Amino acid sequence: MKKRVLTGINTTGTLHIGNYVGAIRPAIRDSRNPDTESFFFMADLHALIKCQDPARIARSRLQIAATWLAAGLDPERVVFYRQSDIPEIPTLNWLLTCSTGKGQMNRAHAYKAAVDQAVAAGRDPDADVSMGLFCYPILMAADILMFNADEVPVGHDQLQHLEMARDVATRFNFLYATPEKPFFSMPVATGGSEIEVLPGLDGRKMSKSYNNVIPLFEGGRKALDEAISRIVTDSRLPGEPKDPDSTSLTVIYDAFATKEESEAFHAELRAGLGWGEAKKRLADKIDAEIGPMRARYEELMARPEEIEKILQEGARKARAIATPFLAELMQAVGLKSFTQADAPAAQAKSAKAVKALFKQYREKDGNFYFKLSMNGRDLFVSDAFASGRDAGTWVGRLKREAELPADAPIHLLDGVSADEVTAALASLRTEE
Amino acid sequence: MKKRVLTGINTTGTLHIGNYVGAIRPAIRDSRNPDTESFFFMADLHALIKCQDPARIARSRLQIAATWLAAGLDPERVVFYRQSDIPEIPTLNWLLTCSTGKGQMNRAHAYKAAVDQAVAAGRDPDADVSMGLFCYPILMAADILMFNADEVPVGHDQLQHLEMARDVATRFNFLYATPEKPFFSMPVATGGSEIEVLPGLDGRKMSKSYNNVIPLFEGGRKALDEAISRIVTDSRLPGEPKDPDSTSLTVIYDAFATKEESEAFHAELRAGLGWGEAKKRLADKIDAEIGPMRARYEELMARPEEIEKILQEGARKARAIATPFLAELMQAVGLKSFTQADAPAAQAKSAKAVKALFKQYREKDGNFYFKLSMNGRDLFVSDAFASGRDAGTWVGRLKREAELPADAPIHLLDGVSADEVTAALASLRTEE
Repeated sequence: MKKRVLTGINTTGTLHIGNYVGAIRPAIRDSRNPDTESFFFMADLHALIKCQDPARIARSRLQIAATWLAAGLDPERVVFYRQSDIPEIPTLNWLLTCSTGKGQMNRAHAYKAAVDQAVAAGRDPDADVSMGLFCYPILMAADILMFNADEVPVGHDQLQHLEMARDVATRFNFLYATPEKPFFSMPVATGGSEIEVLPGLDGRKMSKSYNNVIPLFEGGRKALDEAISRIVTDSRLPGEPKDPDSTSLTVIYDAFATKEESEAFHAELRAGLGWGEAKKRLADKIDAEIGPMRARYEELMARPEEIEKILQEGARKARAIATPFLAELMQAVGLKSFTQADAPAAQAKSAKAVKALFKQYREKDGNFYFKLSMNGRDLFVSDAFASGRDAGTWVGRLKREAELPADAPIHLLDGVSADEVTAALASLRTEE
Repeated sequence: MKKRVLTGINTTGTLHIGNYVGAIRPAIRDSRNPDTESFFFMADLHALIKCQDPARIARSRLQIAATWLAAGLDPERVVFYRQSDIPEIPTLNWLLTCSTGKGQMNRAHAYKAAVDQAVAAGRDPDADVSMGLFCYPILMAADILMFNADEVPVGHDQLQHLEMARDVATRFNFLYATPEKPFFSMPVATGGSEIEVLPGLDGRKMSKSYNNVIPLFEGGRKALDEAISRIVTDSRLPGEPKDPDSTSLTVIYDAFATKEESEAFHAELRAGLGWGEAKKRLADKIDAEIGPMRARYEELMARPEEIEKILQEGARKARAIATPFLAELMQAVGLKSFTQADAPAAQAKSAKAVKALFKQYREKDGNFYFKLSMNGRDLFVSDAFASGRDAGTWVGRLKREAELPADAPIHLLDGVSADEVTAALASLRTEE
């Protein structure tokens, strides 16, 4: 079976060659791997969190779709769609919202950073937090789980969100699926810190916030030349030997050149190639690769109806998967048509009386213990208690807790995850 | 134009005659008013917040649909649908999530009660809070705003949620609509505390949690008789004069009788009618009204495919409204098809350069002031400052705030709401 790889694309702002080298080019290359089934989606529902300028969202969304297509993304080979064209995603988002604890969201880095910033400025902790920002990780989980992606290439800042998607999946599986047939597989983060980071004009990471970018298509060749002319170098004159490692110029060149070309370029610099000439060569090198793409980009931007058609076809392919899968999930949570049978897991659960069970007991050592089992499988055992009452107090407390307290005097048995315990405890609370 | 009334129906648990008298009967009566267009929906996406037993949700949902139909809800006259059949609702839920501040949800009574309870028990404040519980008011706003309901009959515990729906609507209108043509009208709570509360067997409010209910259909006439036999009365014997106000029996009787019948019944009790005989008359009285309904209920429960057909037709009617309206809203936020023009408001905004503007100035009194205007309309003016720098510090702070601080030295001008100011401040922050 092919590996499913899901890539989310931000739809705010315009792109620079750092985005191209670090994200677009490798993702498109990977999408040509015959062993993978690639999903690319424009994360335009996420865009609403940060941007409330409709014209800007609309413009940026079109530009970014055109960019990926111009850069070689093949919509015949991959599933390329807009998140907002898949109504199953917000519905799944709500199902997952109901099976996720608020405590988990409280720990999200992006949320905590916004709170820290507000508190440091003497404001209300939630002053800058929209519900969109707070709920973001659940929508991201829905994006991934809707298609049961095996791999999700993410940057370092998204690793925690991927971890959360796994937790959300685990909880939902536990609540609604049989262990033999979970609904969601566990997505794995890839790429992460390995995603190539291109330096900008000043040697720092290329980023719009540093104002050190080389634009990808916007402004054409002219803007490319202008940006490159601003790359920081030392002041050695033509003819003087130069250190190729003294400037980001060579790093950017290398990102567009073969190994041999790079070595030759570095050697010429060491032999005295002038910076002006070196910049011209860099511009030519980049333009050889992205020039033809830019031409396609401009063609596409002039024909939005063509991009629309491509994305509609992508939505059709995505929904061919999402629609039946969501129907299965809706049945699983109890929201089925009245002519449908109960979900298999619900039947299995009522038949087998799936149940978490606390058991208190005394060992030969004279001490008191308790353990928690689920369907007859032990999940944890407690430490020894001299008093049965103390053990009982802990059982009472654990029954009330949404999550396992860090100081709980228990140890998980082999192969048991904290999530399983949390879900087992939750099942005790929801029984009537 | 007809008034739109939207009624949400809980889909957990089974119903008792308190629900019938207090909610079902008046709602069905009101739905026959020719001046209203009634929407009734089974709030089954909300049900997932509290109940993670799929079989129970499925069963209860069917029973409750059958109950409303058996009690006389006319699906030809009203729009009767399941929330989960309208995918536009979770999508609108996300749009509203992005335009709602987290601070607002922090103040929801239901959330705060869960936190207080956990804190009192020495646990983590969010120990018992699912994201579903926390986000509930936004989904409720989506339920209401999706159909631009004018009136929503709610109990006292829901009044705050309705207020929140108005806030959410105001904010969205402000961000994305022109003042002349808002997307959402402001829903009004009705019924509220006036909804009739029927006492239970023991005189307290009839409620399953008090175990004092008379079941509506479940258990048939037998269960009705048994429950009524347990109504608390004093121990006066047949022939002794009785105080009709000494028991809930008469209150329940009155809920099913004409004024004349009630007066006669009370008179007979004062004249010595035995409690046993009185209970028999009450049972007959209730059964005269609900007996035929119970028969229809049982017929319907035996033919789930018929209820399914009715609800599918209801979903079709609801979506005939929701689908084009959501498309309009999606266009408004910038998530339009690439072949669509920009939303009218976005065009208007770029054309007119809709903009919030701070202005600092010095009055003849020598003091410094500032004011905030939006599209040339002044929203507030500041108090007097002896120093221009102090005024400037406040302007800087207000520009950064998500909400108007309580101690802000300003006063709103006539007809300006705090929401408008908050939204104007927000628009300053999102501009680049």
